[in-house]
Amino acid sequence: MKLEAINLKDKFSKFTRHWSPRVIAEMNDYQFKLVKVEGEFVWHDHPDTDEVFIVVEGTLNIEFREGTVTLNSGEMFVIPKGVEHKPSANTECKIMLVEPKGVVNTGDSDSELTAENDVWV
Amino acid sequence: MKLEAINLKDKFSKFTRHWSPRVIAEMNDYQFKLVKVEGEFVWHDHPDTDEVFIVVEGTLNIEFREGTVTLNSGEMFVIPKGVEHKPSANTECKIMLVEPKGVVNTGDSDSELTAENDVWV
Repeated sequence: MKLEAINLKDKFSKFTRHWSPRVIAEMNDYQFKLVKVEGEFVWHDHPDTDEVFIVVEGTLNIEFREGTVTLNSGEMFVIPKGVEHKPSANTECKIMLVEPKGVVNTGDSDSELTAENDVWV
Repeated sequence: MKLEAINLKDKFSKFTRHWSPRVIAEMNDYQFKLVKVEGEFVWHDHPDTDEVFIVVEGTLNIEFREGTVTLNSGEMFVIPKGVEHKPSANTECKIMLVEPKGVVNTGDSDSELTAENDVWV
């Protein structure tokens, strides 16, 4: 066991690409991933799992078919499995995702925004 | 689905008791819990699961048999299953735990600090 804190700010400083999740920790078969987002993502869902968004810095909008949730720094939201959503951010926003290992960022929607999975930082 | 952000600061304002986890969200069979801590907790471990500590405000020490990790705001740590640990904080510290539903705060160590489980705020 490495006796060292995982510092979110430090981890965020190590990459710049948007919509490209970087794994920073694993708990059982779940992963904690940092993502920098800006602009609009694609509509998608994750048929097999819930997904947690935690906003670390900035403002994130999550559009659902039934309405939109806006998350600011220090706020989080659980997206239930199978529920279509489209994240977006007017300016760069830093978020942490929590979800089972193996979840692809665009879910069941193939897209040019589909990112390589399980990339650590 | 309730289209409302979960605001950590707001949730922390709703309770004062130390070492008494309050559930704020559930993702699959995992829970996100807020805890206010101050002073020393008891040595314990969780034989069946890893456990994540995220410090939201203040400074948390996690003592292990092999050394101590200090976490400040914006830092996190994964405690591997079965590893004995003893959290402590010199002044009040606000943390978020992520772990499977049903995990008891004192693990396998019965204590006066053992808190009621699955209490939501």
